[in-house]
Amino acid sequence: MARDERGVTPQSEDFSAWYNELVFKAELVDRGPVRGTMVIRPYGYRIWELLQSDLDRRIKETGHANAYFPLLIPESYLRREAEHIEGFAPELAVVTHAGGKDLEEPLVVRPTSETIIGEMMAKWISSHRDLPLLLNQWANVVRWEMRPRMFLRTTEFLWQEGHTAHADADDAMRETMLALGFYGDLAAQVAAMPVIAGEKTAGERFAGAERTFTIEAMMRDGRALQAGTSHYLGTNFARAFGIQYTDPDDVSRFCHTSSWGMSSRMIGGVIMTHGDDQGLVLPPGLAPYQIVIVPIGRGEQEGEVGAAAQDLAARLSRKGIRVHVDNRPHLSPGFKFNHWELRGVPIRLEIGPRDLAAGTVLMSRRLSTGQSSTGQSSTAQSSTGQQPGGQPRPRAAKEAVSLDAAPARLSFELAAFQAMLLERATQFRDERTVRADTWADFTAAVAVGWALALACEDPACEGEIKAETTATPRCIPLDGEPDSGPCIRCGQPATYGKRVLFARSY
Amino acid sequence: MARDERGVTPQSEDFSAWYNELVFKAELVDRGPVRGTMVIRPYGYRIWELLQSDLDRRIKETGHANAYFPLLIPESYLRREAEHIEGFAPELAVVTHAGGKDLEEPLVVRPTSETIIGEMMAKWISSHRDLPLLLNQWANVVRWEMRPRMFLRTTEFLWQEGHTAHADADDAMRETMLALGFYGDLAAQVAAMPVIAGEKTAGERFAGAERTFTIEAMMRDGRALQAGTSHYLGTNFARAFGIQYTDPDDVSRFCHTSSWGMSSRMIGGVIMTHGDDQGLVLPPGLAPYQIVIVPIGRGEQEGEVGAAAQDLAARLSRKGIRVHVDNRPHLSPGFKFNHWELRGVPIRLEIGPRDLAAGTVLMSRRLSTGQSSTGQSSTAQSSTGQQPGGQPRPRAAKEAVSLDAAPARLSFELAAFQAMLLERATQFRDERTVRADTWADFTAAVAVGWALALACEDPACEGEIKAETTATPRCIPLDGEPDSGPCIRCGQPATYGKRVLFARSY
Repeated sequence: MARDERGVTPQSEDFSAWYNELVFKAELVDRGPVRGTMVIRPYGYRIWELLQSDLDRRIKETGHANAYFPLLIPESYLRREAEHIEGFAPELAVVTHAGGKDLEEPLVVRPTSETIIGEMMAKWISSHRDLPLLLNQWANVVRWEMRPRMFLRTTEFLWQEGHTAHADADDAMRETMLALGFYGDLAAQVAAMPVIAGEKTAGERFAGAERTFTIEAMMRDGRALQAGTSHYLGTNFARAFGIQYTDPDDVSRFCHTSSWGMSSRMIGGVIMTHGDDQGLVLPPGLAPYQIVIVPIGRGEQEGEVGAAAQDLAARLSRKGIRVHVDNRPHLSPGFKFNHWELRGVPIRLEIGPRDLAAGTVLMSRRLSTGQSSTGQSSTAQSSTGQQPGGQPRPRAAKEAVSLDAAPARLSFELAAFQAMLLERATQFRDERTVRADTWADFTAAVAVGWALALACEDPACEGEIKAETTATPRCIPLDGEPDSGPCIRCGQPATYGKRVLFARSY
Repeated sequence: MARDERGVTPQSEDFSAWYNELVFKAELVDRGPVRGTMVIRPYGYRIWELLQSDLDRRIKETGHANAYFPLLIPESYLRREAEHIEGFAPELAVVTHAGGKDLEEPLVVRPTSETIIGEMMAKWISSHRDLPLLLNQWANVVRWEMRPRMFLRTTEFLWQEGHTAHADADDAMRETMLALGFYGDLAAQVAAMPVIAGEKTAGERFAGAERTFTIEAMMRDGRALQAGTSHYLGTNFARAFGIQYTDPDDVSRFCHTSSWGMSSRMIGGVIMTHGDDQGLVLPPGLAPYQIVIVPIGRGEQEGEVGAAAQDLAARLSRKGIRVHVDNRPHLSPGFKFNHWELRGVPIRLEIGPRDLAAGTVLMSRRLSTGQSSTGQSSTAQSSTGQQPGGQPRPRAAKEAVSLDAAPARLSFELAAFQAMLLERATQFRDERTVRADTWADFTAAVAVGWALALACEDPACEGEIKAETTATPRCIPLDGEPDSGPCIRCGQPATYGKRVLFARSY
């Protein structure tokens, strides 16, 4: 039973198999009946709710309001912006029949909502006093996926899409960067996922955007994951949908619009940023259960230990900690330890008759806070456990914690765990990010991580880089130093004025 | 401008026109481009968020977990439960084309999710230890509507759908009634909307259910609105999808399942329960802004008054009150008063230089708390305002409130306003609910309100009642007294053992 519960291919052996097995074994998702669709199970959905609640607060605090726009969009709407339809056409799901009849005009299941929201903005905006118009929507979208992968690329996914209209380019650009800041902060502070914020090159822009900005995170296989994007749309959609206002001098002008999105793919990023051979490692900010208590005791002691566990849980809960008592009577403590380790619970507490007598509880962290980025524990007391394959592996030490002091101590430990994960991920990323000045260095760097290199803007050159290394330009980092010289690939003068981040990506 | 802002047909003149105009004028919704679809604008969506947050808390506190299931369902799934497909077939929207190709099997845009969730439950449940399985989903659903009406019947709507599986009928029935209790409590405590909870007659049951329960609320035109339903599905879906478990004796058994839903239609109910000729009246529990402060002062005084308004808003906000300062410089106080009255803000505060000097603020309630259910104000001091049509109408008196005591006082006033609305709606409903024992009494009662009458179970008889009066059996109230006698229509012996609630309905 434990074997069945644990049997995930080690990450170090086959990253892709590890991920594909783990999302199911940890009960985050299940496969939907339609190819490429995903059922988000309660344990996975709770992570989404925690992401949502933090981001929704940031969105509202900055004056945006949530609204809801229809799922079904007339196909003709998408055609009004030429690049937009060209980009999305291959991915559309189309309703042709409804209410027992064939429809006169096919309806697209929204792949994104710039068009339908643009149509409404045109109705709602007339004066400069109506600006800025700051909207957000939490919704499902459908994009037909040829190579689906749970959380990362699914035919339907959940996201939020911000859509705003402004009087001029400056204000729209400020908004575009504000939203990018939400995502960067959410990633770092809540998901413990350090990101590089930057602008996309022309070839990677959103269909219909003037400028696209992104946050890119490094997964533990060295690939990059785009974890949120923010677009300055110029007047492209305003012209297509007639989003106009009269300025204070009574002159009619087109609005400048922005759009920005963060999706359930972020959960995939969390899994691949922190997880290890033993399964998920969840940052406390997103862990459905930050602490699991396993009562240990049979027969006479069961009642006393169980009551102490419940009492402790109530005290931790009052401190705002998400805590769960695993009191399933038919399962062994060992099974439960593995169960919650696989599910990435940051801290486990064991409480047995001897602990109770001593007024303590035994604490184990999912990763030792002293653990280095290479996966080796630096704790002297570490004991060894058995991996499914039979090799010993370092296990974080257990520590006795006073029951009286437990709420304060565990709040501290959770904060320390969160900080440790961010530090570990940052160190891991920085160690695998190379300033490459030769083609040999470049190819070596993108084989295991990221390369910062000078590049030209020629799409053909980008294409050659991709063909040879599978790496693509992820972004032009916002905080990059001015730099110039020859393009890493073709040797022509580099054109962005700073280095471009290249990586293989999800 | 004020006329344009106010121009809603009075409720007393034409209820239907009043509703249809108000939902747009109050900026709750806009029309989507596809027939029957609705855009929920920020002011309307905030009401939905407040409903959601309260109901979500109730759902989670009772051990249910949120999850997310795919939007697109293979058509064949719906066919597995014969009554289910029969009920939903005419309303389905169907995706036949996706990713640039015709699909082999058409996909239905979910009208409800019993089938796809049933399929997953069958995978997830094997032992009695997996039961009960208590799931909930917040989602959009599509049902093609021939006679759409904003919030009440739209082609797409937002809802939550609870889906649970149990070992036996008793446990599934307990769950069915628990969920009905959520809805009743949400309606009464948050929406200030009193409801009658009862069971649907056979003809009004959910397609595929053994028993359907409902909460019914009375609108101010005397019609009934079904505001939430909860279904005991027996083993119908368990048999169709193979939802089985092994009991402690290792015998394989079918689960008993339930499903229950509350939708954005509840917002329509709130509008029609509390609104009046002047527009919306929102219960504080659901008001996006519970209090709006209008600073009054020009020139030199503007800064001082504005600062005092902001300071008061901050103090109210710290008390947990949702407050908004309307400091739009280009609009007159009178315009703002009408603006917020139409939008149903429970309490308005005016603050001008003289108030400030006196250390007070002027409070106006959207409805006088002493106002009776007939719409007459009982306040001696009421002044008169002008209706769009020019007739004087009673307006609630203004009252000076000490700035120092404002937070405590206004918390109290909001609670009193909430209680007043519930009491007023209950009184209104009770006055229009008649125990009818003759056909003449019955037809008179359902012309303006509700009738409690004895009835038989014959569908033909129900059909005749509907044909002649447009009234239908809304429910068999749970708390009805035992009663017997002849059916109000056909004279055959009544069969439910208690009176049935009849009404015209939305």
